[in-house]
Amino acid sequence: MTRLEELGEFELIRRLTANLRLGPDVREGPGDDAAVVRPDPGRDLVITNDALISGRHWLDEWIEPADLGARLALANLSDVAAMAARPRWAVIAMGLKPDRLEAWVSAVQSGVESTLARENAWLVGGNLGSVELQEWLCLTLIGDVQPERAWTRRGARAGDLIAVTGSPGRAGAAPRLIRRLGAGARAAEWSPLLEAWRRPTPRVDFARALAASGVVVAAIDLSDGVAGDLGHLCAAGGVGAELEASAWGDDPPLEAAARTLSVPLEELRAGASDDYELLLAVRASGRATCEAVAREAGVPLHFVGRFTPDAGVIEWLEGGTRRPLRARGFEHFV
Amino acid sequence: MTRLEELGEFELIRRLTANLRLGPDVREGPGDDAAVVRPDPGRDLVITNDALISGRHWLDEWIEPADLGARLALANLSDVAAMAARPRWAVIAMGLKPDRLEAWVSAVQSGVESTLARENAWLVGGNLGSVELQEWLCLTLIGDVQPERAWTRRGARAGDLIAVTGSPGRAGAAPRLIRRLGAGARAAEWSPLLEAWRRPTPRVDFARALAASGVVVAAIDLSDGVAGDLGHLCAAGGVGAELEASAWGDDPPLEAAARTLSVPLEELRAGASDDYELLLAVRASGRATCEAVAREAGVPLHFVGRFTPDAGVIEWLEGGTRRPLRARGFEHFV
Repeated sequence: MTRLEELGEFELIRRLTANLRLGPDVREGPGDDAAVVRPDPGRDLVITNDALISGRHWLDEWIEPADLGARLALANLSDVAAMAARPRWAVIAMGLKPDRLEAWVSAVQSGVESTLARENAWLVGGNLGSVELQEWLCLTLIGDVQPERAWTRRGARAGDLIAVTGSPGRAGAAPRLIRRLGAGARAAEWSPLLEAWRRPTPRVDFARALAASGVVVAAIDLSDGVAGDLGHLCAAGGVGAELEASAWGDDPPLEAAARTLSVPLEELRAGASDDYELLLAVRASGRATCEAVAREAGVPLHFVGRFTPDAGVIEWLEGGTRRPLRARGFEHFV
Repeated sequence: MTRLEELGEFELIRRLTANLRLGPDVREGPGDDAAVVRPDPGRDLVITNDALISGRHWLDEWIEPADLGARLALANLSDVAAMAARPRWAVIAMGLKPDRLEAWVSAVQSGVESTLARENAWLVGGNLGSVELQEWLCLTLIGDVQPERAWTRRGARAGDLIAVTGSPGRAGAAPRLIRRLGAGARAAEWSPLLEAWRRPTPRVDFARALAASGVVVAAIDLSDGVAGDLGHLCAAGGVGAELEASAWGDDPPLEAAARTLSVPLEELRAGASDDYELLLAVRASGRATCEAVAREAGVPLHFVGRFTPDAGVIEWLEGGTRRPLRARGFEHFV
């Protein structure tokens, strides 16, 4: 009789999906950023869902409802981006308390709707339920992609390069600062971190442009943090990875947060953090192409390491030393 | 500053969906049993979602996890059936407590999976989150249908007949008996009601066979009870309805429940009840066709009334008298 807290989220997922039966129209089942199905020969659909849980993913006093809705949409858009697909339609489910204000619900929905609309995707339906104790929001997003063109987590080989968009770690640092500093986290110096947490940037267009270049061989979105999500890419590809401390761009607000929280910068950068950025495996010959596409799109992109033959081993290279990565990704239940 | 409990579920839905922007590929937005979208000219997709909330939709001690999963699948299959569509793929989201047993989660998923598989639909992905206080399960189901062939809630005209499958009211009577009788509700005489609650019957194949006959002009699934869902059909069609007490089949267990609960049979039959049966508007000339399809499929079907010109008025005809229907459908938040 095993409890979930003894297993952790990913072992539970492994067990739940190990023997799932799937029909021939299912091209990718559970285990990637989104499932891939084929309604007709000419087009694949990707399907993903993501939920935000009150007290765990958000605190009312720290996020405006429109930003909360936007974040829910972005969590899903990020999964669709990580499949190099085009977002199309979404349905929302909300478990809400009876004393919740209508204006709040309406603003959450507007945040979802407008964030999707900017990517030409539409909120087409939903389901409302009443809860007594703990509210939640759940969005399912469907996208489309040309058959066999979806990025998956598989495909990284030893020698492939590791690239990340944006400034990973900022989103995860924000709630830690809030817990440490309370209202002090509202100071201007922390706003880049709070913004990364409240309003991540969708990478949908960039992913599709990059997919067209053909140099990306595996992809995942950063929702558990670099250590966790790079671990998923390594597991799917049967490889290991090494990260170069010096290859990440400077990030003064994140460095300040590391000092204030008295934790190594590495822990913020690679530990639990839902940045909704892209983590990519790129053929070594494709680096210049990737950089050109990123420059064209105005997307910050850093090559921060490479995949190695040592399956499952992730190392951190800093100041001429090499050691196992200390940071851990986010995991529910444990 | 209006709270949800002041609005009720349906007024909230009306407000949330009144000004939703939708793209040209969205054929039916929110407000029906499922949304209808068109990825390509040759095929429409229907998208629906439904959630079950602990303490509200289920109590652990009264339902086995496999039945709970089956019920979650059936709530969604029922929406797809009410669109006369074919279920294809689903994703699940679960908010679970860390001390929940793995075996329970696995059984819930098996219930979902096997219930979908019997209809040739597949669970292709999911999302797990950890909650402290109140668990929930949310399923999104995607189906397909030939373009312009999905049933909607619109289309009932005065003179059209009202048909229902199965024995509406049984599912809603079960939790009321449990609250009244406690362990006494486990007596054999109540098992048809408890079974209707725990294991409703999918009407997917029947709906598709009936749709091919072309005599159904509007449809909804019974998830809020006949009074509520007939109200939705009337509102969508701009019509009223009259129900004939004598036209419903005898239902001895439901009649016994009415006596035990000291409520009129009408209240159980037409009041809040999530039976996941079909409520249909049928052209008067199509009655014999419907009955033949139902007989062929072995599905109980009763013609229980007709639509009238009095928009929004639902009447109950019993023993030569006519009066407003007293029963009320289920509504969250109020």
